[in-house]
Amino acid sequence: MKIMEKDEKRMMKVMLEEQELPKVWYNIVADMRNKPEVYLHPMTEEPIGPEDMSAIFPKEIIAQEMSGERYIPIPEKVQELYRTYRSTPLFRAYRLEEKLGTRARIYYKYEGGNATGSHKLNTAIPQAYYNKLEGVRKITTETGAGQWGSAISMATSMLDMECEVYMVKTSFQQKPYREKLMKVFGAKVFPSPSENTEFGRKTLAADPDCTGSLGIAITEAVEKAVQSEDTKYALGSVLNHVLLHQTVIGQEAKLQMEKMGDYPDVIFGCCGGGSNFAGIAFPFLADKLNGKKKLRAVAVEPKACPSLTEGEYRFDFGDSGRMTPISKMYTLGNDFIPSDIHAGGLRYHGASPLVSQLKYEGVIEAEAYTQEEIFSAARLFANSEGILPAPESSHAVKGVINEALKYKVQDGDKETGREEKAPVILFCLSGHGYFDLTAFDKQD
Amino acid sequence: MKIMEKDEKRMMKVMLEEQELPKVWYNIVADMRNKPEVYLHPMTEEPIGPEDMSAIFPKEIIAQEMSGERYIPIPEKVQELYRTYRSTPLFRAYRLEEKLGTRARIYYKYEGGNATGSHKLNTAIPQAYYNKLEGVRKITTETGAGQWGSAISMATSMLDMECEVYMVKTSFQQKPYREKLMKVFGAKVFPSPSENTEFGRKTLAADPDCTGSLGIAITEAVEKAVQSEDTKYALGSVLNHVLLHQTVIGQEAKLQMEKMGDYPDVIFGCCGGGSNFAGIAFPFLADKLNGKKKLRAVAVEPKACPSLTEGEYRFDFGDSGRMTPISKMYTLGNDFIPSDIHAGGLRYHGASPLVSQLKYEGVIEAEAYTQEEIFSAARLFANSEGILPAPESSHAVKGVINEALKYKVQDGDKETGREEKAPVILFCLSGHGYFDLTAFDKQD
Repeated sequence: MKIMEKDEKRMMKVMLEEQELPKVWYNIVADMRNKPEVYLHPMTEEPIGPEDMSAIFPKEIIAQEMSGERYIPIPEKVQELYRTYRSTPLFRAYRLEEKLGTRARIYYKYEGGNATGSHKLNTAIPQAYYNKLEGVRKITTETGAGQWGSAISMATSMLDMECEVYMVKTSFQQKPYREKLMKVFGAKVFPSPSENTEFGRKTLAADPDCTGSLGIAITEAVEKAVQSEDTKYALGSVLNHVLLHQTVIGQEAKLQMEKMGDYPDVIFGCCGGGSNFAGIAFPFLADKLNGKKKLRAVAVEPKACPSLTEGEYRFDFGDSGRMTPISKMYTLGNDFIPSDIHAGGLRYHGASPLVSQLKYEGVIEAEAYTQEEIFSAARLFANSEGILPAPESSHAVKGVINEALKYKVQDGDKETGREEKAPVILFCLSGHGYFDLTAFDKQD
Repeated sequence: MKIMEKDEKRMMKVMLEEQELPKVWYNIVADMRNKPEVYLHPMTEEPIGPEDMSAIFPKEIIAQEMSGERYIPIPEKVQELYRTYRSTPLFRAYRLEEKLGTRARIYYKYEGGNATGSHKLNTAIPQAYYNKLEGVRKITTETGAGQWGSAISMATSMLDMECEVYMVKTSFQQKPYREKLMKVFGAKVFPSPSENTEFGRKTLAADPDCTGSLGIAITEAVEKAVQSEDTKYALGSVLNHVLLHQTVIGQEAKLQMEKMGDYPDVIFGCCGGGSNFAGIAFPFLADKLNGKKKLRAVAVEPKACPSLTEGEYRFDFGDSGRMTPISKMYTLGNDFIPSDIHAGGLRYHGASPLVSQLKYEGVIEAEAYTQEEIFSAARLFANSEGILPAPESSHAVKGVINEALKYKVQDGDKETGREEKAPVILFCLSGHGYFDLTAFDKQD
């Protein structure tokens, strides 16, 4: 019986000391071959400047959105709030490797341990902070699965601000605990499309049964933000500054992988807007773009909303109501409404402009899987590693399992040289699935 | 605006390196003034020996139950599985202190970060391990709020065993996500009283609307265990070996407090069966019992199930069906069925014999609070510290808040000497409340 054997002492995970945590965010724009395309104004279709965004974002966020600096300092107050839950652990997935019978070494960075259950808090905190600093009293936002909504609710609660969340209706119904959690943190939550905005009312008039989309919810939140002086809008993914904030993930992971004595050959992250993929991958891609390392980075998305794998690379609006800037990205069209897949956080018609450009330029890759495939991967992961992944994160899990299965242990591996070829795989487990248990139940 | 001031760099939490984790469990029996009373046989009422317990427990667990050794080594395989989620963080609750305006320094050890959301995994893993080692294939158990059931489901899944859980019906209905989580880990879950056992059928015949109790669920699980050779029973609290396993909490906390440069004057833990209270308090109480330190330890329980504060200290059965050994403890009577309070994990008619004896001997104290009081404490905690406590854990939070409010900052504190008198408070945040959100919702 295996359990009775004397195991060698294996290091299961690496944490970092508070003083080892990143003091800066990493901006990949500084290292990209080509500078990103400018944003266009939604009405005039002319390039926009900082002043055009000031109705919805605070100045410092706009500066970060447009910055070309490689490193941007993290304010001490934000570092302090990060320290309440960071570092996050980097695990070696020994038990998953054993179940798969693979020679690959699999590592994962787990971002679901904080109170809101996902990586979204990494950008919610600085966004709330910069708004507060500039006198904003209330933040409006949209949320898909509710991970972002929970995170911004908690961040505004930490900084004594108000919060109003438009939650895609299909997720609002599938994930009732998410609304309750946001309410505990004092936020107001509306299923979107709602009767609370002009765009919501218009949408419902045209289709009373509309189950919503991120594009619609964004329009509703932006509409409310532009109406008041002391209210601004916050976005949980897609934009440059959001991806920037998430680079604390990859920076920590680099140091943790070093402590494990390894470096990834391939990195996986699930991809909706793109922020968790960017968070884990960008700090490593710096090494690739600077010619220091070879590595692959794979963004994994749902077959039901396949912007990177099947969308067009072109200018498009970020929302359905055409209120947000036009940006160049892979898109399924701003009026695309995906089917009711459980991975509500990945139901976005477009993708981050930075992630899109890197895909277009061949720096990164993309894959897509069906809902059935990712739920089965999630179960396998839960039963080996003991953490139930969010449906969103399960896309990355599925990508990793596929990759690892290419390197199954076989007789004669040593002779054929297969042994050395087994890759080091790293992925971001962006959140837990404990609020998604009804979805798992339905798959039984 | 406070947020704009330059904060000094505050250490928010302490984690431990894997090599700093405990290699032994601490057995308080070795340091108690009087040895614990023996257990009596449920039929004969004669003192029982190890062989009497072997129908339901594996040998090593029985040995631990009866051990007087101060330290018991943690098997390497158990240490390895502990390393997948330990150490748990020790936080300084700066933001709670500020909200309360207290001079007290408040620390908490957070046990809710693992996949099952509570401290219960600390004993689920070794219990599953010792059973597996002795050839047991299946474990039966009861669960109240579902925290223990989730933990043992995960532990048996990690070790490729089967698991059958009898869940107190009132919690089964209040916390549907708990059942789903156990099912993800492959467990079979029955609302108790169930039609699956003789005792369950008898109970339902007498009262078809019975909402269950831990005492009933224990009888059902034990009944199933004694029927099969390869099936044994596991208990999530109350007994000595369970409390023993939980001492990893307090041992880690001692080292972490040392790194923070502090030592607690008073420790709080919520108390149902008593395992999380014992886990945090016993390793510190060693210092008290050995005359090295002065400190208070306070067990906090619900007014609706006040065994330590209002029960009698006498011999009683551990379950309603009178199948388990008789032990000396504070009890409300083995047929006591508490009202449907949301803190399902604290609905036990008795208390741990060890905790009871320490209370009886004046080594520890006990307090009780109402459901309304603890939910309001939980909200305050969530909005300052950003973690939503489980209703069970919220009892400890309430005790801490009461204590801290005795030391509010006042003018002239320095002159009156109040400044130095403010205590260092430590408590165990035994689990998160994300599966209890419907209960919070109802309190709105």
